Amino acid sequence: MTYRTLPDGGVTTPRGFSAAAVAAGIKQSGRPDLVMVVSDRVCSAAGVFTQNRVAAAPVMLDRQTLAANAVAQRGVVINAGNANACTGAAGMAAARDMQQYTAQLLGGRPEQFLVMSTGVIGVPLPMERVRAGLATAAPLLSPLNGRAAAEAIMTTDTRPKFLAVEVDLPGGRVSLGGMAKGAGMIHPDMATLLGLVTTDAMIPAGELDEFLRQAVSGSFNAISIDGDTSTNDTILLLANGASGVPVEDEIGRAAFGAALNEVCRALAMMIVADGEGVTKVVTVRVTGAATPADARRVADTIATSPLVKTAFAGGDPNWGRIMMATGRSGAEIDPMRLALWISAPDEEPLPIVREGTPTDYREKDAAAIFARPEFTVHVDLGSGTAETSLWTTDLTHDYVTINADYRT
Amino acid sequence: MTYRTLPDGGVTTPRGFSAAAVAAGIKQSGRPDLVMVVSDRVCSAAGVFTQNRVAAAPVMLDRQTLAANAVAQRGVVINAGNANACTGAAGMAAARDMQQYTAQLLGGRPEQFLVMSTGVIGVPLPMERVRAGLATAAPLLSPLNGRAAAEAIMTTDTRPKFLAVEVDLPGGRVSLGGMAKGAGMIHPDMATLLGLVTTDAMIPAGELDEFLRQAVSGSFNAISIDGDTSTNDTILLLANGASGVPVEDEIGRAAFGAALNEVCRALAMMIVADGEGVTKVVTVRVTGAATPADARRVADTIATSPLVKTAFAGGDPNWGRIMMATGRSGAEIDPMRLALWISAPDEEPLPIVREGTPTDYREKDAAAIFARPEFTVHVDLGSGTAETSLWTTDLTHDYVTINADYRT
Repeated sequence: MTYRTLPDGGVTTPRGFSAAAVAAGIKQSGRPDLVMVVSDRVCSAAGVFTQNRVAAAPVMLDRQTLAANAVAQRGVVINAGNANACTGAAGMAAARDMQQYTAQLLGGRPEQFLVMSTGVIGVPLPMERVRAGLATAAPLLSPLNGRAAAEAIMTTDTRPKFLAVEVDLPGGRVSLGGMAKGAGMIHPDMATLLGLVTTDAMIPAGELDEFLRQAVSGSFNAISIDGDTSTNDTILLLANGASGVPVEDEIGRAAFGAALNEVCRALAMMIVADGEGVTKVVTVRVTGAATPADARRVADTIATSPLVKTAFAGGDPNWGRIMMATGRSGAEIDPMRLALWISAPDEEPLPIVREGTPTDYREKDAAAIFARPEFTVHVDLGSGTAETSLWTTDLTHDYVTINADYRT
Repeated sequence: MTYRTLPDGGVTTPRGFSAAAVAAGIKQSGRPDLVMVVSDRVCSAAGVFTQNRVAAAPVMLDRQTLAANAVAQRGVVINAGNANACTGAAGMAAARDMQQYTAQLLGGRPEQFLVMSTGVIGVPLPMERVRAGLATAAPLLSPLNGRAAAEAIMTTDTRPKFLAVEVDLPGGRVSLGGMAKGAGMIHPDMATLLGLVTTDAMIPAGELDEFLRQAVSGSFNAISIDGDTSTNDTILLLANGASGVPVEDEIGRAAFGAALNEVCRALAMMIVADGEGVTKVVTVRVTGAATPADARRVADTIATSPLVKTAFAGGDPNWGRIMMATGRSGAEIDPMRLALWISAPDEEPLPIVREGTPTDYREKDAAAIFARPEFTVHVDLGSGTAETSLWTTDLTHDYVTINADYRT
């Protein structure tokens, strides 16, 4: 790897990007809730969006905007505290108004700005506050506000999520900066996942899209399951070329791809670790599947089963629930070929099931692994060679507390 | 309706059935955990089983038994405290041993007895205790033990679930008796659902099967979603003909069918109301779907969403989560045609969303409905005429408490 992680970096680390964050009064708490991230020159852009059929207005608008203009974007405006979802035609008008007013404030055309929203669903966006906030934010744009931007997009997140990475390409050094906000219980529909990655590398929009899809599949999509996401989930990538360094030839592409993957992977792990009420992060590994889809089905079913996740919370190695989830996943399963191991980081896996039958493992060894803050559950289906890994968490009392009373 | 409900009745209400329940030491609590329900003459029999690919040994055995002999069953043995699932070849041998030893104790052939198990997965069934318990139970068989049987099959249930129904057919009066144990969080894979219905009506095995499938689809399968069930879920129906009254002609079939539907519906509702940590029972109604499968997808996704269920728990009418679940269900959705109502029992529905846009409902009216112990959430997709209803519950702290520490 040729990249270097900058834990204090963020979306304004790449040259030419600046940000502003203000409290516009959208969040009831009065905390900062409105963010601009802007480039001093046009960017190529790519986006990955929720598969939810009830997509929020900003998602619909960004899809249109990128389809019409992925080659000359200027920046992104983001609000927290209100998802602008299930808000009908008025919601679409509000999203367009955010876009237009930003263009008016900063110069440029409306279709040069993207919009992201997160927060409560079904409440009209308070556009007077949003416009006032945008007007306040515009003069505050600065390369120093990367962290402030990451803080202002938080909803139930307990800490901001950001980092930057530097990577040496054959033509010189480029930077990538990222920020994200969390997805509640991690599972797909659990809350909104927003992510923004900036870079000063030079990349055409078409190639950018491929890089982003590749990076998302091994990061945000390993926590946020395909086709099964919230109304607002959005990951955007802006490349402004301010470094003057192109991403070209095989070595350059590989280096840039690795750096982008790392930014996305690190942000995704920050989200998992900060899941609502989370005390444990569990890697679910599935091997020996007949098809990649089967591997994914099994991993997804285990990773989202409330019975499995409460067993994680209790530190109870109730592996029967893992077998049950495997069996109901819809994948082709021969029960007598199933195997299960559990393991703590950097330790030998403990075999629990072989050929569908429990081993003579000692209960206290299993309990010791489930008591760890991180561990791996590995199911082998014995039916093929396909495999996958997902990250999941436990399901705790705090999760219920946070979500039983989110709005009030 | 020509049937009459007997709330104190149970599986021994129909003539010719007797039961016994003993504490065999399978449950760690030392409570009764082993049940026999036996007919004094041969029965026709039908069963509906889990779709889980990791089916428990008793499920596999009962499928074989009914395939070979659905016309001359004698009874059922049931243990709680151990699911005999994920127990490999030894588990299958144990299930057969339960069957054979029961036949030996009571007279008859092994294939005349069915077996059900519920409890922890992956632990060998303690066959010495089971055999000793069966030997103790056999001489205790009595028509008075219907309630004791329903109590002994409980696991996380807080109360036994049983009833009987009398119905007048053209040829005379027959009885149906039922008992069941709960399915944890209600959702499918959440725990084992066992049900047994007995009747003294005369019905051939082939017809029995149709009656049972029909009854289960509107009851247990409206809480336990198709193809997505635990390792052990089983519903059995035994008809011994002891009344001498045949189920024949259209009137007789309709009356018997209605009575059987009522037994299954009532048991299913008892299960929902006694779900783990449940404080609210919610009917999820979906109309206007393009296809029945779409209606089911939407209802299922709403009914099982942790975010929706925690909102129920908190009494927070956060209907955006219901829209989000609708959108991620995989059904064909036009967001601008969605409508949502919520309603308390016997009150006018409160319109919340029309044509994808919030109405001007008052928050306190919505909160008052979500504060009720029972209410209905009704989503109309505006895309067709298919509809369905499911029952679900809230997701509470108690659910986490019960399931974080189930085994220990």
